[in-house]
Amino acid sequence: MQSNRNTTGEENYRVRNLEIADKNKGFTELLQQLTVCDSVSDDEFQKRFEELRLYGDEHLICVIEDISSSKIVATGSVFIEKKFIRNCGKVGHIEDVVVDTSTRGMQLGKKVVGFLADHAQSMGCYKVILDCSSDNKAFYEKCGFKEKEIQMVKYFI
Amino acid sequence: MQSNRNTTGEENYRVRNLEIADKNKGFTELLQQLTVCDSVSDDEFQKRFEELRLYGDEHLICVIEDISSSKIVATGSVFIEKKFIRNCGKVGHIEDVVVDTSTRGMQLGKKVVGFLADHAQSMGCYKVILDCSSDNKAFYEKCGFKEKEIQMVKYFI
Repeated sequence: MQSNRNTTGEENYRVRNLEIADKNKGFTELLQQLTVCDSVSDDEFQKRFEELRLYGDEHLICVIEDISSSKIVATGSVFIEKKFIRNCGKVGHIEDVVVDTSTRGMQLGKKVVGFLADHAQSMGCYKVILDCSSDNKAFYEKCGFKEKEIQMVKYFI
Repeated sequence: MQSNRNTTGEENYRVRNLEIADKNKGFTELLQQLTVCDSVSDDEFQKRFEELRLYGDEHLICVIEDISSSKIVATGSVFIEKKFIRNCGKVGHIEDVVVDTSTRGMQLGKKVVGFLADHAQSMGCYKVILDCSSDNKAFYEKCGFKEKEIQMVKYFI
């Protein structure tokens, strides 16, 4: 059966890497639900997309597309940090996970985080880390994470 | 006056970028005070050093050398993450800060963190972040940081 606009099942959602065309599928509007992302021109988007592409598998942005509406409804990123500690180990850093308000409760966030964590593991990382608010702690525990340390921040602007 | 082995003043400590020769100046032994870093061969060190050099200014490892003993007594790293959020903003991630037990209390840690934060700011980051234990929170507050979120981790090995 072909998917159509009324499809609500799991097959209606495609988990994949970010593509440049996703800017026109609501990707930046989705990020706007996370924090400020309100004035990225097509040129700026393309430039940043190309910069990130240079990292290859070391920086991955996952998206979930709602096939019936061609909208990006969930995203998250992971980059691989190369260290000297842990005998030249690698760590995956998960960032900027967000699920569209209209599709929350459908386990799409868990899919994104699983996709990113699997990628970090396949890249040889000994661990994957992320920072979250207390409100989101329970969600990440369901994704297999445990609380470890405190995140500290210094803002420049 | 030339520095000598008895020098204890500030001029005895040089803050600079990591150099490949630092492996023989106690760099990996210093990291060992932070966590496991006990079996890095010269070849593995050189390979990782070269890999990190490819990132240019986007990954900086700061060291402080005790000139009189030619020993590395403090280190820390920062890498620059490029994002789409914050209108294609950048974030500095500080990692692996450690000061040799013999030189603690001399503000060398503060120098390392300041060096790394200044670098992140000069690279155009809107913030710099790090994860630390509760025990180290007060130290980072003295460096101008504030507690923000919770760090979550998932280990693969």
